[in-house]
Amino acid sequence: MKLLLEKLESIEANIKKEKPLIHHITNYVTSGDCANITLCFGASPVMAEELEEIKEITGAADALILNLGVINKSKFAAMLAALKVAKMRGIPIILDPVGVMASQMRLNMAQELLQSGVQIIRCNYAECRALLGDIKFGQGVDAGIACDNKGAFARQTAQKFNCVAAVTGEVDAVSDGRRVVLGRNGNKLLEKVTGAGCMTTSLVACGAAVSDDCFAASVLGITAMNIAAQQASATLAAGESVGTFRVNLFDAISIMKGINIAQGFKGEIL
Amino acid sequence: MKLLLEKLESIEANIKKEKPLIHHITNYVTSGDCANITLCFGASPVMAEELEEIKEITGAADALILNLGVINKSKFAAMLAALKVAKMRGIPIILDPVGVMASQMRLNMAQELLQSGVQIIRCNYAECRALLGDIKFGQGVDAGIACDNKGAFARQTAQKFNCVAAVTGEVDAVSDGRRVVLGRNGNKLLEKVTGAGCMTTSLVACGAAVSDDCFAASVLGITAMNIAAQQASATLAAGESVGTFRVNLFDAISIMKGINIAQGFKGEIL
Amino acid sequence: MKLLLEKLESIEANIKKEKPLIHHITNYVTSGDCANITLCFGASPVMAEELEEIKEITGAADALILNLGVINKSKFAAMLAALKVAKMRGIPIILDPVGVMASQMRLNMAQELLQSGVQIIRCNYAECRALLGDIKFGQGVDAGIACDNKGAFARQTAQKFNCVAAVTGEVDAVSDGRRVVLGRNGNKLLEKVTGAGCMTTSLVACGAAVSDDCFAASVLGITAMNIAAQQASATLAAGESVGTFRVNLFDAISIMKGINIAQGFKGEIL
Repeated sequence: MKLLLEKLESIEANIKKEKPLIHHITNYVTSGDCANITLCFGASPVMAEELEEIKEITGAADALILNLGVINKSKFAAMLAALKVAKMRGIPIILDPVGVMASQMRLNMAQELLQSGVQIIRCNYAECRALLGDIKFGQGVDAGIACDNKGAFARQTAQKFNCVAAVTGEVDAVSDGRRVVLGRNGNKLLEKVTGAGCMTTSLVACGAAVSDDCFAASVLGITAMNIAAQQASATLAAGESVGTFRVNLFDAISIMKGINIAQGFKGEIL
Repeated sequence: MKLLLEKLESIEANIKKEKPLIHHITNYVTSGDCANITLCFGASPVMAEELEEIKEITGAADALILNLGVINKSKFAAMLAALKVAKMRGIPIILDPVGVMASQMRLNMAQELLQSGVQIIRCNYAECRALLGDIKFGQGVDAGIACDNKGAFARQTAQKFNCVAAVTGEVDAVSDGRRVVLGRNGNKLLEKVTGAGCMTTSLVACGAAVSDDCFAASVLGITAMNIAAQQASATLAAGESVGTFRVNLFDAISIMKGINIAQGFKGEIL
Repeated sequence: MKLLLEKLESIEANIKKEKPLIHHITNYVTSGDCANITLCFGASPVMAEELEEIKEITGAADALILNLGVINKSKFAAMLAALKVAKMRGIPIILDPVGVMASQMRLNMAQELLQSGVQIIRCNYAECRALLGDIKFGQGVDAGIACDNKGAFARQTAQKFNCVAAVTGEVDAVSDGRRVVLGRNGNKLLEKVTGAGCMTTSLVACGAAVSDDCFAASVLGITAMNIAAQQASATLAAGESVGTFRVNLFDAISIMKGINIAQGFKGEIL
């Protein structure tokens, strides 16, 4: 665990030093928040999805996010092209299969992307279950599900898709198919913020862009968001002042250091 | 009036209890704000507009919002498909005819949706006039117009389109074609916030999703937004600090209870 | 200089008086922020990009913004159509060539728009260098570059494209090909906010919509944003609380008067 926590610190420092460029192909609902959280964490966002420019944009990026929120077919074509470029260049690809349990089309798209190969899946438990072919159910993207054995769940996902599975919820589970970390910094208020998952994916991508260790990068991004949420909710006057909470989240990420993340982490390696 | 106010309370309680899923087909400018306000009010948003997944997404939703802001033809095709599914399932359809006075195309689209049948129109007076075939004029979506008889205006709209007309401005008018409520909680600062109307539509849809009474649900959503605006502006240091006002709006909605809405309501039944 | 500063005051007053309508054809990442800053400054935004309604929407607008962020081909077709209408009507066209250094497609698009003729280019130094055919480099849109002679740089751009060049960074340079103003109100924190450039373009357009002097309108918009940033950062508790900074930015613009802009301006006429 000590080694992992030290890794978190060094990755965070590298983000600030290298200011990686994160190519997002993502939904319009949360794209502004993703761009802002990426800047707050010390990296640079770029959003582009016209097929003709994908080669250059992904070609200059340090990581690629594929987010299936509000997906359409022309955007998906851009994703396939970008994925190809990212693979050739060896930059990490992070899939956020938003709402994949809610439509067969999204599930098919996710599977096609997964077959081409991604480095990290960042999703919630409902989305993860759908990817595993488990029961489909038509809940919103923020649906939580009870999982008796979250660690095994993440490990199974990682093994099946040969990548890091970073599954978030009240308890987070990250696995590379071998190692499993359970994170216990989850914050209920994040469920009240649209794009909390998408933003976590952006933070994970920032880490993956400057490190070969996608497992540690995933723990870093998830823990950063959770600690930010904890700090953001600590000072709220009323119980659930979600507007102020959102502002505080960006504040917290913009002043967060690796040492805060390492020291604030609660959880265990299985 | 007492019955109506009690209804507001019970609808709000049902939103919290049932956490309905609100399918938005909407513009990208205000979609993030709509998603966040929906979460703050206790419901779940889902945005989707690719034709292939409409059947499943609308098929799992508890209400459908059709918002004509930044509309394009492929999104409109998705709206027609979603409307069909919503009608078959009997879930409420809420039309927000953004900017319908500013282009013939939007007016045609709105009329086509209205002919298919919606349960609620939520709009401002300029948009409502355009729907009624009144003078066209090329103002922005936030244009206000003087209306001597707002109640009659809403009733006429409701009768013509066989739905609830929820027309917002400094004075709000809601009618189901028979009953008319005038709301006097309107707040001028809402004109300074993009998407104030779109967000109000989201709140109205949250209510309609858990109640058969679209008239009461409309009064609920509009009044919730107005009282939130009143609370949000009460604590502003400078006269028109719109950034803080916006944050406060989300705070206010996230802690608002039905009793606050019922007690805060100012207005009359005509 | 005194004449210019007086002009800033009168333009700002005209924005409040005339409430011009600003047609944005822009990216979805920052469109909500652009709409809100436009409202805060006293004008009205309208976003529309479906070809069929361009004639009416641009036909009713007082200025047209063409922003190349997340551009796609159908949006570009709408830009060409809108540009034509704007030229016929004599309303100012403001180009924001977002990320034009990052793809040949965006560069081609920008050049096609510039050949048709725009009144103002609002961009950063990296984008400006790309427009001038200088070294291409694949940095994010917020990339800064060192320029020994920023004033000459802006003048050259203005002369080449026969328009006002409004180039922003830590030092801003505005030129109409003859006059050059260097602005020294730049604020580093703006680099941490996505869409700071896009929003500046909106403010510039507000000014151009109510004045024949695109040079002064550009100085006005840029200076307003910079002074807002200065005020927004002055009260921050922690060094870089970017969430609060963003809220403060909107607050500052919403209460800013022309006199604040004229008195706060730091810089010189070359």
